[in-house]
This record gives sequence, structure tokens and C-alpha cells, in this order.
Amino acid sequence: MNYLELSAAELKERLKADERSYDEYVKAGLKLDISRGKPSAEQLDLSNGLLNCFASLAGTSASVDFRNYGVLDGISEIKGLISELIGVAADELIVGGNSSLNMMYDTVQRALQFGVAGGVPWNEQGVVKFICPVPGYDRHFGICQTLGIDMIAVPMNNEGPDMDLVEELVARDESIKGIWCVPKYSNPTGVVYSDRTVDRLVSMKTAAKDFRIMWDNAYFLHAIYEDVPLKNILQAAKDAGNADRVYIFGSFSKVTFAGASLAFMAGSAKNMQATRTLMSAQTIGSDKMNQLAHYEFFKTPSAVIEHMKKHAAILRPRCDLLLSRFEEEWGDGAPVSWSKPKGGYFISFNAMKGTAKAICKLCKDAGLTLTPAGATYPLMLDDEDCNLRIAPSCTKMDELKTAADLFVTCVNIATAKQLLKNM
Amino acid sequence: MNYLELSAAELKERLKADERSYDEYVKAGLKLDISRGKPSAEQLDLSNGLLNCFASLAGTSASVDFRNYGVLDGISEIKGLISELIGVAADELIVGGNSSLNMMYDTVQRALQFGVAGGVPWNEQGVVKFICPVPGYDRHFGICQTLGIDMIAVPMNNEGPDMDLVEELVARDESIKGIWCVPKYSNPTGVVYSDRTVDRLVSMKTAAKDFRIMWDNAYFLHAIYEDVPLKNILQAAKDAGNADRVYIFGSFSKVTFAGASLAFMAGSAKNMQATRTLMSAQTIGSDKMNQLAHYEFFKTPSAVIEHMKKHAAILRPRCDLLLSRFEEEWGDGAPVSWSKPKGGYFISFNAMKGTAKAICKLCKDAGLTLTPAGATYPLMLDDEDCNLRIAPSCTKMDELKTAADLFVTCVNIATAKQLLKNM
Repeated sequence: MNYLELSAAELKERLKADERSYDEYVKAGLKLDISRGKPSAEQLDLSNGLLNCFASLAGTSASVDFRNYGVLDGISEIKGLISELIGVAADELIVGGNSSLNMMYDTVQRALQFGVAGGVPWNEQGVVKFICPVPGYDRHFGICQTLGIDMIAVPMNNEGPDMDLVEELVARDESIKGIWCVPKYSNPTGVVYSDRTVDRLVSMKTAAKDFRIMWDNAYFLHAIYEDVPLKNILQAAKDAGNADRVYIFGSFSKVTFAGASLAFMAGSAKNMQATRTLMSAQTIGSDKMNQLAHYEFFKTPSAVIEHMKKHAAILRPRCDLLLSRFEEEWGDGAPVSWSKPKGGYFISFNAMKGTAKAICKLCKDAGLTLTPAGATYPLMLDDEDCNLRIAPSCTKMDELKTAADLFVTCVNIATAKQLLKNM
Repeated sequence: MNYLELSAAELKERLKADERSYDEYVKAGLKLDISRGKPSAEQLDLSNGLLNCFASLAGTSASVDFRNYGVLDGISEIKGLISELIGVAADELIVGGNSSLNMMYDTVQRALQFGVAGGVPWNEQGVVKFICPVPGYDRHFGICQTLGIDMIAVPMNNEGPDMDLVEELVARDESIKGIWCVPKYSNPTGVVYSDRTVDRLVSMKTAAKDFRIMWDNAYFLHAIYEDVPLKNILQAAKDAGNADRVYIFGSFSKVTFAGASLAFMAGSAKNMQATRTLMSAQTIGSDKMNQLAHYEFFKTPSAVIEHMKKHAAILRPRCDLLLSRFEEEWGDGAPVSWSKPKGGYFISFNAMKGTAKAICKLCKDAGLTLTPAGATYPLMLDDEDCNLRIAPSCTKMDELKTAADLFVTCVNIATAKQLLKNM
């Protein structure tokens, strides 16, 4: 149904019907949650074999006793596996604990306290700003907010952030020290950065000599419909003569266990060595037994890729369900739009301007938790109040069907009200 | 043999004999290491059952899926166990990853960036200083050095740091923001802080309102000969009206696997809540599967205590060997002395002034690695060049006997030379 073509009377009638449906949902006392990009129990079950790998580690002999202290940046077995998957050399890689967020936070904190590449600590340079492509990942914004870094929102398009705007900003403002990027199946838009975007990011002129790209490649293995290639940014940065501009991050959090997996960072050998030097005051090394168990579980990059196909098989019907429901409802024209991601964990939904918060509240009051409206913008400031992030992974299929129907109902109610208000 | 009673001729003769022995050691091509407080393979084997616990976790049902994201400060099972062991409430405790060093570093970094208890960030207060009891733990000094914190060495006595001096310093210097303490079986002296020392630390007047005690209770479970009680500093701090002055740290690193265990921090509910708030921008939580495996392995505090008796049984003969060898050699008087610890991981050896570096070099050249002379002092500055830290845990008994004999030979050579020089 194309709401834009309805008369006021038709809208009112439609609204009444939707509100009747909505009341039924409220009465049903639902408790549904499509707010966070968490793997489902079914997905986690795919990696239960990892737990058995621990038991066999007891007998593992090696020149290093993995149970003991030591090995700052990851055991060679797992470094080899990850190096190959992401296309960097071993000395360009640091494998850490269970949280890539932690590695990103620490990287920014280190830049503030010590500077990067021998430069002046950001803490001593007055105001520090980061470019935040929007809609984007709330926890990136959280790092900036906590550490007192100002955020400049730049809109995403279907090749990545608006590079004309990015280039203009970084060329004239020395206080812009970084940009957050989720380059593949971006959170939440699903966009994969084009080669041209990658090239422009690594070669653009920046007023700040200590500018850094925070390349959070969280979904590098997470194709659902199609593995869309992403240009190797470290190689591109080297080719552009700006090898030190890039910090790459990633994890196996959505490969094995979200809370008990491996995170890593990568970059130029120089950057990684500087990081290791500072890290050595902070830790003696991450959990090598978990690293070894992960290595034993996979052994080869191709085993990881095969494993990810099982994740895709679980996620695909969930995305199908939402995408076909939205298409069915609004495919013939509506003041709403949504992303059709090839991978990742999210569908980005653009409601009619001024309705996202209302939709969120309607859903919540009927027992369906969404990511809060605004969360995809720095400081929760979605000026148009339209973007919503939908995470279907952690909900069972039958519940997801209910959630989709309820969501559609709430969107239609908010849309009809807004259209009526504007008439 | 009492070197102090020997004539020059006797010393020369003795030196000649020792140098002949030394040459034999050099020829033997030894490769021994008593430099770091690492558990031995035999000790690590005590916890191999932990690895089997992982396999059974797959079937664990709970309201939380421990494989997934979430739970910032540790699962309730392991928090309950640790709370009881260290005598704090659950809301006074945060369980982290595998590294207490990391939690200490992050705590100091947070104080620098954000301040403590709502105060001014230490970064913005000019020079920041910490009191470092000496001899002490090199990695504490490393944190200060890396983060640009000046260190004031204060001597240890047999009740803890020289509290007269500590009180005088903190009362008059507002830039002194903290003190490092290893209160039980101190690294390397083995000293256990007396109740009086604990009381003075928590009740002393500090010029800095944001003064903090970094209470690294690394060896709280690590009795070897005798479990010497340590006063509960958080309770003492509350009683003194300074509940927020204390950050407690500890780990299971030398309980299960040194590189793959659990670390924790504790303090007032207010301090821990402030820490959680900042942590929430840094991580979604530590590895809950490892926490759960640890809980399954122990289940009760008394099981942990029993487990530690097995560690003690392995460590005791190693300490016996060194202590009896030293007694045999120098028991009737010598210009050297050494600690007789009741627990922990180290023997602190005070060589004759001006000989520690020489002893270290002699040992190294004969294939025996010691902790570098000076490492127990901030910036490696042991003005008297006398303190050496000996870590016997990770060496097999027959090798440790050789190491002890070689060490004694090197000490005697350096001592004889120094005495002859002074004649």
C-alpha cells in the first residue's frame, strides 16, 4: 500500500485498523528484542566443538607452554591464520583478547596519551575531532564521547561516506584526527566501501599529520547473500605512501563465541611495533589457550570460510523474512526505505522524517525492543528522526515473524499520524 | 665461610678456587633461568582439569548464554567465589580478563584521563608522582614510567614500606597521587604488611585528595610455609573513613594458568561503579566461558585453598634448596643477606654493595639468567647496586641445584673482588 497516495479519510480508516491490530499485540504481552547484533544460540552452537578443543590442549607440546606467561601479540599459529584471512604480514598483526572494541578504545586512548607515530599526544592538542559516517555504530560514538572527542557526522552513500565532504573537512581542519569506518556490510547500512572510496581515504590530503583511519572490519567474513570484495586498505595505504594512516580491527566474535573469542588489530609494521611497545607495559599477553583452541578448531582459512557459510544459512531466512515483509508492505511506494544488505548483521530502516522515536516507543510499549532511535548518530542526534537499526539475528523465526508484523504496524501507525499532521 | 674475616691472601686463594669452579660452569654450556616468577610445568599440570571443564560447558543452561555478548564485570558464579576469598561484596568487585597488570594499567590510565571520584584528571594536574616501595615489582614501575609518572623510592622494612617516610611524603606533596603495594609475600622481599601498616596507609593524611593505594594482592593465596594473615584493607579503609582510597587487584594467574586465567579488581562500591561506567565504553565484557570453566573447576573457596596447597608442595623444596644452600654458605656471617619468605614467588638477595650487576653478568656469562640487577628499583636505579631477585619456581630441582651452586660461586667471586678492592 502506498501511503503517499491515500486521502485523509483513507489514512484515518487505515490508522484505525492498524491501531486495532496494535492493541492485540499489546494484549499478547510480547517480549521480543531485535536491538543488538548478537548471534543466536543456533549460531553459537556451530562452535561448540571449540570447547572440546580445550580438553585436547593439555597434551599439546610446543616450544612455548601456552598455559604460562608470555607472547605479547598472539601465538604464531593463530597469527598465521588471521594474517592470511585479512591479507597482512605477521609483523603487521596483533592478536588480542576477546574484544575488538577494547583494542579500538585502547588505540584511541594511546593516541590521546602518547600521540601516534612519535607525534604530540592528542590530549595536548586542544580539541580533537573524529569524522563519524552516519548512520553508524553506536559504540564507536561511545568511545569518542567518553574520551571527549568531538564528532562530525558525515552521511553514508552507497559507496561509503560522502568522500567529497570528508576530503573537504580533513583538508582544512587540523583538529580532525580520525574517521570511524565499518567498511564491509557496514553497521547498520550494509554498505561495502568501494575501491574508489578506499583509495580516496588513504590518499586524501589531511591537515593533521597524525590523522588515522579506524577501520573496523567487523564483518569481513560475514557474507549472507554474496561475498562482496573489499579492497585491502593496508596495501592501498602503502601504495598511496600513507602506510601509517590505517588501524585495522576485527574479531572472531561473530565467528565462534561473541563473548569468548579473539580480537585483532593490524597496520603498518611501524604502527604495530609502536603499539607493542606501549602494550608491553599494559599486559604480558592475551589468553593463548583460547588462541590455540581457536587454531585447533579451524586450522585453515578455508575452514573458517566454510564455517561462515553455516552462519549465513542461519541468518539468510531471517533477513529474507524481514526484507520480503517490508517489500510486501511498502514495495509499491511509501515514505519509508530500507537497506538490502549482502551481509553483516543489520537492516537499516529509514522511516518517514520525525517518526523514528515514535515507532520505537510504539514497539517498546507492545513488548518489542529496538535499538533506540538516534543510536546510529553521534550523541543520539538524528536530526531527521528517521533512522532505525534492525538486528534480526538473535530472534527465533516464528518470533521474528511476529516482530516484523508488529514493526510494520507501528511504522504504519506513526506514518499515518505524521501524514495526517502534515495535511 | 665468613668472607669478612678473611685476610687478603685468604681471599685471593678463595677467589682463585671459585674462578676455577666458575670456568667449569662456563664450559658446561648451561642454560638456566631464575629470572621470572613463572609457575613450572608441574604446577601448571595441577590445573589441566580446567581444560576438561570447557567441554562440559556446551550443555550448561543458564539465564545468560555465556557464549554470547554481555555481563560487563564478571558472571555471578565466579564473582561469588572471589568475593568470599578476598572478603568484599559483589558490588565491590569487577572480574576481568587474564591480566591483573592490564587492570592496574587501565586504572592508572583512567585516573590520568578522567581523574578519580569526579576529581580533576591527573593529566591536567602537572607532575604526578607515585611512591614505590623498594625493592619492588618491576612492572609496577614500568606502568609509571610508560605513563610519565615520577617515582619516589621508599625502603621496605619487615612490616611493609617505611611508613614514617610515606606519611611525611604524602602529607606535604599534593602531586603524590598513589603508592604501589604488594602487601602479602611482597615481590621480591616476601614481606607481609602488618596490621599497623595497613591502618596507617588507609588513615594517613594526604595532601592529594585524590590519592590512591594500588593494592596488588598478587600472592594472597600463595602461602608456601605459612599462611600469614593480611588485614582486609577495604574494611580498614572504610573504618578510617577513606573507603575510596583503595584499589585492590589480584588474579588466579598463579592458581591455574599464568597466561589464561582470571584477573579482578575490588574497591568501594562507588569506585567500582565509576570504573564500570568508564569500562562500558571500552568493552562489552570479559571472557565468560573462561570464568565459568574456572567456577566449574573449583566451585568453592575451600577447593581453591586446597589446590594452592599442591602448589606449595611443589614450591617448598625449591625454596628449601636455595635457603639451605645460602645458609650453608653464608650462615656464619657474610656481607650478604637474603629474605626467608613464608610464601610468594621470590627470594630477595642483598649482595655486597656494588656487586649486584657484576654477579648478574657473571651468572649470565655462565648461562644463568637472573632478573637484571636494578630491576627491583624504579628506572633500574639501585643506588647501592646490591639487590637481586631470585625466582626458583620454574626450574627443575636438579637444575635449580646447579643454578644455586653457580649463583653462590658468582656471589663469592664478586664479593671477594670487592673486598680486595676495598682493602
